[in-house]
Amino acid sequence: MRWRSSIPDGIAIEPGKISALVDAFAAFGPLPGGGVSRLCASPADGAARDRLTALLREAGAEIRIDPIGNQFGLFRLSGPEGADRPPVMMGSHLDSQARAGRVDGTLGVVAAFEIGCRLMEARRRGHLFARDFCVANWTNEEGARFRPSLLGSGVFTGVHSMATALDSRDDDGIRLSEALAAIGYLGVDPAPPPPFCYLELHAEQGEVLEAANQRIGLVTRNWGAAKLDFLFEGEQAHTGPTPMARRRDALLAAARTICEVRSLAQGRPGQLHTSVGRIVVSPNSSNVVADRVEVTAELRSPDDAILVEAEAAAQAAIRDAAAQAQVDLTLVGRTLRKARDMPRHVVSFLTQCAQAAAQPVMPMETVAGHDALSFIGVRPTGLVFVPSIGGVAHNEAEATRPADMDAGAFLLLEAAFRLCAETAPFSSEVDMELQP
Amino acid sequence: MRWRSSIPDGIAIEPGKISALVDAFAAFGPLPGGGVSRLCASPADGAARDRLTALLREAGAEIRIDPIGNQFGLFRLSGPEGADRPPVMMGSHLDSQARAGRVDGTLGVVAAFEIGCRLMEARRRGHLFARDFCVANWTNEEGARFRPSLLGSGVFTGVHSMATALDSRDDDGIRLSEALAAIGYLGVDPAPPPPFCYLELHAEQGEVLEAANQRIGLVTRNWGAAKLDFLFEGEQAHTGPTPMARRRDALLAAARTICEVRSLAQGRPGQLHTSVGRIVVSPNSSNVVADRVEVTAELRSPDDAILVEAEAAAQAAIRDAAAQAQVDLTLVGRTLRKARDMPRHVVSFLTQCAQAAAQPVMPMETVAGHDALSFIGVRPTGLVFVPSIGGVAHNEAEATRPADMDAGAFLLLEAAFRLCAETAPFSSEVDMELQP
Repeated sequence: MRWRSSIPDGIAIEPGKISALVDAFAAFGPLPGGGVSRLCASPADGAARDRLTALLREAGAEIRIDPIGNQFGLFRLSGPEGADRPPVMMGSHLDSQARAGRVDGTLGVVAAFEIGCRLMEARRRGHLFARDFCVANWTNEEGARFRPSLLGSGVFTGVHSMATALDSRDDDGIRLSEALAAIGYLGVDPAPPPPFCYLELHAEQGEVLEAANQRIGLVTRNWGAAKLDFLFEGEQAHTGPTPMARRRDALLAAARTICEVRSLAQGRPGQLHTSVGRIVVSPNSSNVVADRVEVTAELRSPDDAILVEAEAAAQAAIRDAAAQAQVDLTLVGRTLRKARDMPRHVVSFLTQCAQAAAQPVMPMETVAGHDALSFIGVRPTGLVFVPSIGGVAHNEAEATRPADMDAGAFLLLEAAFRLCAETAPFSSEVDMELQP
Repeated sequence: MRWRSSIPDGIAIEPGKISALVDAFAAFGPLPGGGVSRLCASPADGAARDRLTALLREAGAEIRIDPIGNQFGLFRLSGPEGADRPPVMMGSHLDSQARAGRVDGTLGVVAAFEIGCRLMEARRRGHLFARDFCVANWTNEEGARFRPSLLGSGVFTGVHSMATALDSRDDDGIRLSEALAAIGYLGVDPAPPPPFCYLELHAEQGEVLEAANQRIGLVTRNWGAAKLDFLFEGEQAHTGPTPMARRRDALLAAARTICEVRSLAQGRPGQLHTSVGRIVVSPNSSNVVADRVEVTAELRSPDDAILVEAEAAAQAAIRDAAAQAQVDLTLVGRTLRKARDMPRHVVSFLTQCAQAAAQPVMPMETVAGHDALSFIGVRPTGLVFVPSIGGVAHNEAEATRPADMDAGAFLLLEAAFRLCAETAPFSSEVDMELQP
């Protein structure tokens, strides 16, 4: 039983189909270099969501938009008893960075959609299911326009409160609630019930699979991440006559911080990644000493002890930079997400599915956070990676080979048939002993 | 003769009048803290220009808007022979930094306007003039929205070409020509002829006068300035999985540059001022390695040897920062303005005017560049400073005492009567031997 596929004869994912769907969604927020610009709740995001709604509806799914704009397509596969059981859920996100590749979260959404279509096809042919299947497109995974990232999935699983999330503002002061309303996605539907299991397919966005010449990665552990938002406040002054000693230069404090945060990662490959990618400077004129600079710093590590130590060092460096530049410092926000293992029973289950599909897999860590992370400790969850060519991510050149996309989606199709069957491969209860 | 005022009896500047005019203009682009936001060719700048036009017209001046948007108000004081002679010109600029004080260039414009009014009043009373008087409001002095600074006055005196200036773009890619057209100030009038002499009243924007307890500064020398615009180009990447050693982080290069440029000025008070006030980061997202960062660095010195050496050191530091961060470097623009003395005969003349007005004056240097600088070596020019309270500038809190404004304007009124008289105090030809 364990080594046989649960996918009925005649049901398959057409080669190249997933890639074609990814390409079709690249028409929403297209960029000249082949990538997309689809910030959360932008008009381009709205258009992509509309397209997903149309596809789901055409495939026979029931559409729900919850109050944080998460978009669900519920495929009614089971009979009346099945409707009372938690559905199996798969998905990811259609939002992107400001200048991004076309794969990223789109892959997981369109793969889930295609799997829903194949499950419905099997049902039409008489296949019996014990559970329904739900496609999810989560709001603001990226954290590019609104912070924090993984916002919609985090609200769904209770990590974030709905009110705080809706009140999150972009750099122009626009609230997420306003932005969602503007594109027609400030929903009023109830979210589906907590799923039996959540699975996500995603591009690796690193170079581990490619370097190992592997097609499928099973994520066993998520790196921890510390994110610090802080504000330096000095004093606007003329860059000409103002004596150097009197200047209170917020940009100088930010520059010192960026250098120090980077140096923390020196000589710790695979142990600590640090970065500053965002800085908002005011008034940002060549002949005015900046009085106000916001900075977001990130530290990531697979080892909580290293992460905690590095965060303390970063905070000390930020305070020193502020003191040296004679500016005031405010810590605006701080999130510390410890490193977490994926539930082992889901990893084991996915390994069995891979065996049934005769698909070699590679256990691996994820440095980047994905929506599946919001489910750890709440519902059984799994995350499957396919290779990013050259490890390129958050870049217009991001790409994954079509055959690799097919292989990833096929593995999740196998999982879907098993999870929606009468005899579930594991209990829907989270085994808390397996959690760190 | 030398010690007697040339201002006819009964002609005076009403105490507080200049300050009231400055306050009236603070209504255009008002900020909550009492300052103004009046970027060049913005709607607020357009409204301020319209107000100046209305005031000048009401006072009997002839309005001209030249093709770079410089705004002139020509007071016809003389007879037919006078109209053929170069006018005496005074002015400054109404544009401001994004978050600025209300005094800055507005003071010099409204003082020139008030002087024009008083000259017209004298003419109506029968006073005879040999030359006309012209008020000037120069386009884009600040260099905040369009670069370089001193643009309109520089086009007027031939420092910049009209075509290049009109093609200058703001950070949104809008051309100066388009922005001027949008507010109705892409003029078609011929500029007035090169003036007999150009004089400007300006707030000091430093703390020298206040520290010396002086009311009037006569500028004898302009600090030199080197301005470097450069672009770091790395590669967009995910701040999570991308190995640190592989990152090509343009923001890191910019941060190192900012620190290094600042350190050049260490221990050289009064000899070298350095700054970076402007940085444009793309895509500027917390979880994306920035691939494109523009930086503008400034170095200022009263000593050309120090300036040249510091600029070379800055360029070397920028190259090192690019190499360390593995990013490409493009020097987009470079201007080197050497330190220059103001024409001594104009300084002597203004000293005589001050003696006639029984007004003590203090010879001083200017670190900041002002429109008068565009005239050095082209026409006789002079620059008069009044104190900035606390040395505060490019800041909403910028202020000058009303009585100090009056004293500065009164000195220039004395100068205007002398310069517009039949017997000019000096030749209109620039004495090139006096130039460095």
